[in-house]
Amino acid sequence: MFQTFDSTADPSRGPVRLERLRRAMAMKGLDGFIVPRADAHQGEYVADCDARLAWLTGFTGSAGFCIALKNDAGIFIDGRYRTQVRAQADMTAFTPVHWPDTLPGPWLKDTLKGQAAKVGFDPWLHTKGEIETIEKALEGTKVTLIPTDNLVDHIWTDRPSAPNGKIIEQPIEFAGMSSAAKRSELADGLLADGQKSCVITLSDSIAWMLNIRGDDLPRIPVVQGFAVLNEDASVAFFTTEGRVVETAFDTDVVLHPVKNFAAHLKTLDGPVRLDKATAPLAVSHILSEAGVQIDWADDPAVLPKAQKNPTELKGAREAHLRDAAAMVEFLTWYEAADKSALTEIDLVVALEEKRRASNALLDISFETIAGAGPNGAIMHYRVTKDTNRTLSPGDLVVLDSGGQYRDGTTDITRTLRVGEVGDEEKRCFTRVLQGMIALSRVYFPQGRTGRDLDPIARYPLFAAHQDFNHGTGHGVGAYLSVHEGSARINHLSDIALLPGMILSNEPGYYREGAFGIRLENLVAVETATCPAGGDADREMLSFETLTFVPVDTSLVVPEMLSGEERAWLNAYHATCVEKLASRLSDAASNWLTTSCAPI
Amino acid sequence: MFQTFDSTADPSRGPVRLERLRRAMAMKGLDGFIVPRADAHQGEYVADCDARLAWLTGFTGSAGFCIALKNDAGIFIDGRYRTQVRAQADMTAFTPVHWPDTLPGPWLKDTLKGQAAKVGFDPWLHTKGEIETIEKALEGTKVTLIPTDNLVDHIWTDRPSAPNGKIIEQPIEFAGMSSAAKRSELADGLLADGQKSCVITLSDSIAWMLNIRGDDLPRIPVVQGFAVLNEDASVAFFTTEGRVVETAFDTDVVLHPVKNFAAHLKTLDGPVRLDKATAPLAVSHILSEAGVQIDWADDPAVLPKAQKNPTELKGAREAHLRDAAAMVEFLTWYEAADKSALTEIDLVVALEEKRRASNALLDISFETIAGAGPNGAIMHYRVTKDTNRTLSPGDLVVLDSGGQYRDGTTDITRTLRVGEVGDEEKRCFTRVLQGMIALSRVYFPQGRTGRDLDPIARYPLFAAHQDFNHGTGHGVGAYLSVHEGSARINHLSDIALLPGMILSNEPGYYREGAFGIRLENLVAVETATCPAGGDADREMLSFETLTFVPVDTSLVVPEMLSGEERAWLNAYHATCVEKLASRLSDAASNWLTTSCAPI
Repeated sequence: MFQTFDSTADPSRGPVRLERLRRAMAMKGLDGFIVPRADAHQGEYVADCDARLAWLTGFTGSAGFCIALKNDAGIFIDGRYRTQVRAQADMTAFTPVHWPDTLPGPWLKDTLKGQAAKVGFDPWLHTKGEIETIEKALEGTKVTLIPTDNLVDHIWTDRPSAPNGKIIEQPIEFAGMSSAAKRSELADGLLADGQKSCVITLSDSIAWMLNIRGDDLPRIPVVQGFAVLNEDASVAFFTTEGRVVETAFDTDVVLHPVKNFAAHLKTLDGPVRLDKATAPLAVSHILSEAGVQIDWADDPAVLPKAQKNPTELKGAREAHLRDAAAMVEFLTWYEAADKSALTEIDLVVALEEKRRASNALLDISFETIAGAGPNGAIMHYRVTKDTNRTLSPGDLVVLDSGGQYRDGTTDITRTLRVGEVGDEEKRCFTRVLQGMIALSRVYFPQGRTGRDLDPIARYPLFAAHQDFNHGTGHGVGAYLSVHEGSARINHLSDIALLPGMILSNEPGYYREGAFGIRLENLVAVETATCPAGGDADREMLSFETLTFVPVDTSLVVPEMLSGEERAWLNAYHATCVEKLASRLSDAASNWLTTSCAPI
Repeated sequence: MFQTFDSTADPSRGPVRLERLRRAMAMKGLDGFIVPRADAHQGEYVADCDARLAWLTGFTGSAGFCIALKNDAGIFIDGRYRTQVRAQADMTAFTPVHWPDTLPGPWLKDTLKGQAAKVGFDPWLHTKGEIETIEKALEGTKVTLIPTDNLVDHIWTDRPSAPNGKIIEQPIEFAGMSSAAKRSELADGLLADGQKSCVITLSDSIAWMLNIRGDDLPRIPVVQGFAVLNEDASVAFFTTEGRVVETAFDTDVVLHPVKNFAAHLKTLDGPVRLDKATAPLAVSHILSEAGVQIDWADDPAVLPKAQKNPTELKGAREAHLRDAAAMVEFLTWYEAADKSALTEIDLVVALEEKRRASNALLDISFETIAGAGPNGAIMHYRVTKDTNRTLSPGDLVVLDSGGQYRDGTTDITRTLRVGEVGDEEKRCFTRVLQGMIALSRVYFPQGRTGRDLDPIARYPLFAAHQDFNHGTGHGVGAYLSVHEGSARINHLSDIALLPGMILSNEPGYYREGAFGIRLENLVAVETATCPAGGDADREMLSFETLTFVPVDTSLVVPEMLSGEERAWLNAYHATCVEKLASRLSDAASNWLTTSCAPI
C-alpha cells in the first residue's frame, strides 16, 4: 500500500524547535529566518531531509513557508490548508497567514512596524524571482534579507540523510527519443541563444533530459540533483554519492558528487543560462561571485518535456486504458458493495488494490482524494484516520486518483453517489459534466492559451451563477510529475497550448459543508482533423481524450444537455466499452456495458 | 436620407497629387511623408478637411495610412479593405500593404534597403505611442522620422474649412450628471495623481465631460476641439471660432479659438496628464519645449464615460425599444415584400425610413451594412450602386445598423433570409445564435475582462471547427460613438468589465463567396442578481440585454439547442412582444406575435 492514513498532526514539538531556531538566529545576528516548504528543486514533493517546514512547525501541507521573527512566527498557507494548519501547528507559537492574499514582504513590513531587521534565508531554497519580489516590497523599509546557511539544519540534529536511491533507465521504448538526441536539441537552443551552458535544477527536467527515473521522492519518480548542460550537449550531473546506476550513460554524461557542484559552477564559461523561476538563488550568487555571466531564461527542457512525442503519447494511451480498467473494476466492486459499512479509507484501499492488480503500478501519482459528503467540498482533501467518513445515503463522493506506470502517469476524477442523491446535486453535476464535455469537444486556433479555454469549462456553471475556485487543468508528465509545467488551463495561464501537451480537464463544483463534485479526464493537445462542415482552411488544435471511464449517467439531468452534448457523452461511453471490454473481468465487463448504455 | 450609395472610387487624381506631394517633400528636404487617415482626435470619422488620405489616394476606408517615398507609396490597409483599395486607388502609383501584418517600421526598412532617409510626419496626426513603435522598429537603420508641418495641406489648394457647427447641450435628463459634477470627479483624480492639468483630445471624451453634442462629423455627434481640464475642475476648450453655442456653460468652462491652443499649452504648470494612445505628439512636443512636465496616463474620461449612469441606462433602454419598434416595422415590411425585386440598397432605404418615422432619429450611428448572399461574407461591407445585389432565393442577408437618438446610440444586427435557405446555413446560424445566447446568459466574477468572455461566444463555432475573424463586442456610447472605448469583448482585451458599460454581443460566421451570418444585441454590464440555485456568496456580474428584436426562428435548428438555450430564446421572444406591442402598427404587432411564437 502506497498511501497511508495516519494523521501526522503533532503540534507539540513546534514551540521548542521554534525557540531553538530563535537562539540560532540570535547567534548569527539575525532577527528572522525564512523556512520554506520547498527544497532546492522547487518540486511538489520533498525528501524527508528537506521537510524543514514540517519538522519545525508540524504543518505538512504541500506548499507554504514560515517566517520566524523574534516575537512572531507566521505560517503562510494557501486556501487549501487553512483548517489543516490549525490542527498540525501550535497556534500559540505560530500565526497562520492567509497567503497569497498576504505576501511575505507586506507581512514583514506590517509585523515589524518600522523596526530595522535582518531576516535570513537559505539561498538554495529560494529562487531569484521569489527573493526579488520580497525585496521589492521591502524597499524603503529597514528590513533586509540576508542569505545565510540553513539555521534549521543547524538545530535539526537527527536530520535524515539525503536520498541516494538507484538511477534507473527510462528505456527508449517509452521515452521515444534518446538522451543524446534530446541533449543535442537543447544544446542547439543554447548555441542559438549564445549560451555556453545551462544549469538545470528541476528534477523532472533532468529525468526527462537524461532518460532516467528514480525513487528519491514519493509519487514522482525522479533522481534529485543539479545538471549542467553544455553547448556541446555534454552534461555534468551532480547528485548524492553512492547511487546504483542502472543505465548506461553516454560518455558525455558524467556523474559527480553533489558536494562538488558549487566548485564546478565557478569553472564555467559564461554566459550561463539560468531560470529565474526555478533555479536556487545560490547558483546565481556563486556564478556572479566567480565572474561568470548569467543569461536569465526559462529552463529549456520545460517545453519539450511538456510536448510529448508519439512514443510517449502511445505510452500514455496504454497507461490510461490500463488505469481505466482498474477504475472500472473498482466501480464494479463499489456498485455491489454494502455502502453502509464503507468509509473513505475503504475506497482508497480498494482502488489502490485494483491498480496494483494491473501488476504495472509503480506508485500512485498522488495521494488519492476520497471525499464523501461535506468532505467532498474540501478541494484538496486527504483522508486520515481522524477525518475518515463513513458513507451515508445521499452522499456524493469525489474520488481523485492516479497511477505511475512506466509508460505514463494518470490522473482521473469521478464523482460517485451513495444511493439516491438530490436534484440539486444532479443539476450541479450536470453542469460540471457539461463543462468537461465542452472542453473535450473544442477546437481552437493555434496560439490560444489555457486562459482562453478556461471559460469554456466554467460556462455551464457561470450561467447558473456558480463557479469553482481552482484551475480547470494542469500539465501531466510522461511517467513524471502529475503536476507538470508549463501550460495550464486556468484564468491566468498565458502559455500557448502545443500539440503533444497532456493536460487535465477537471471542472468541479463545491458547496461548503454539503457536497463536492469533480470530473477529470486527461487530454492531449493534437492538430485538429477538420470534421465535415468545419472550415478546412482554419488551422486549429483540439484535444484527444486519454481517459476512458464511464461517468455516472444516473447523476445527469438529460434535459439539460444539448443534442451535441448528449451525442458526445453517448459516443464517449460507447468508446469506453470498445476500448476496455477485453481488459476486464466478466463482472466488470457486464457493469461497464450497463453503465455505458446511451441516455 | 443619411446614407448615400455613391461609389466614391475615383483613382484618377491620385498619381498627380502624389507627384505634387513628392515635390513638396523635396522642397522640405524630405525623402518621405506619412499621410494617415486619422485627424488630431483619433476618432473613427474625420471631417472633410481632414480627409487627407482619401484626397491623396482616392481610398476612403475608415482606417489606414499612406507612406509616400520618392519611388514608392505604400497604402496600408487592414483585412476589411484589401479589395476596396484596389478599386479606389491607382495601383500603378500606390502599392497596397497588408497591415497590421506588415507594420510601417519594417516596411520602411525593407523598402529603403539600407538607404538613409528622412521621413516627415505631421505630429498633430500621430500619437506618441504610434511614432515610438515606428522609431523602435527603425533602430539601427538610417531612416529617421521628422516632425514637420502637413505637406498635404500645402498642396491641397481647395481644402474645405474646418467644421464650425453648433454646440448643443446634452441635457441633464439624458446625461444624468452635470458637467460640473463630472469635471469635479475628474479633477479629484488629477489631484490624487498630483497632476495640475490634463489635456483631453478625444472628441467624445470632451462631449461627455462638457455635456455637449454637435454635428462636426457624420454618425458621431461631437464638437471637435481640445480641452484642458485643470485641477480646480475648470476647462479651457479650444475649438473652431464662430460657433453658435446653444448651451449655458458654467463660468469655469471657457471657449477659446483653436489657434490659441498651442500658446495656452506653454502657459500650463506641470505635471500635465497626457494619454500616449490618443494625444497628438505635437501636444507633448509643445509642452516639453516649454519645460512643462508631462505625466503619461490614460484619458481620465474614458472609464467614467464607458460606465453609463442610471439616467444614461434608462435612456439607452428607451432608445433601444424605439429602435426595436422601427426594426420590427421594417421586418414586417420585408416579410410581405416581393423579394425578387429588392436590392440591398432598397433594404437600407426602407430601414432608414422606419427609423426616421420614429421622429427621434438624429442620425444613423454608422453606414448600414446590408450584405446579401456572398456580400454578407464581407464583414464590413458597405453597399454602393456598383456592388448593389438583387436578393436571390436562398440568400442570407446580414443587416447591421443603428441609430443616434438623444437618449442613446443603438447597434443591431439580424440575419434575414430570402425564401428557404439550406441546412448548412441553418446549422451555422444556430451556432452563431448559441454564441449570442451564451454571452447573454452568462454571469462572471468581478474583474474578468473581454478576453475572458470572448471564448464563450465562439464556443459553439469552435466545437464545429469554425470561428469568425472579428471581435465579439465593442463598447457603445450614450448618444456618442457607436464604437466607444475602453472595454471590448475580444481575444486581446484586458480591461475589466464594469457595471454600466454598454457593449455589443455580436458573434458571426462568414463563408467567403457564399454567405454571412451575424447576430448582434447590445448589453449593459450589471451587478448580477443571484438566481435560485446560484451561489449567493459569489459576487458576480451579468449582462442586461437592451435590444429586443426577434431572431428568425425558421433559421434555427431546434434540436441543436440545449433546454436552457431554448428557454432563453423563448423568454427573449416573449419579452420582445411584451415590450414592443404598444409601439407598433397593427400589421407589425401581428407579425411580431407570429414571429415570437415559442419553438
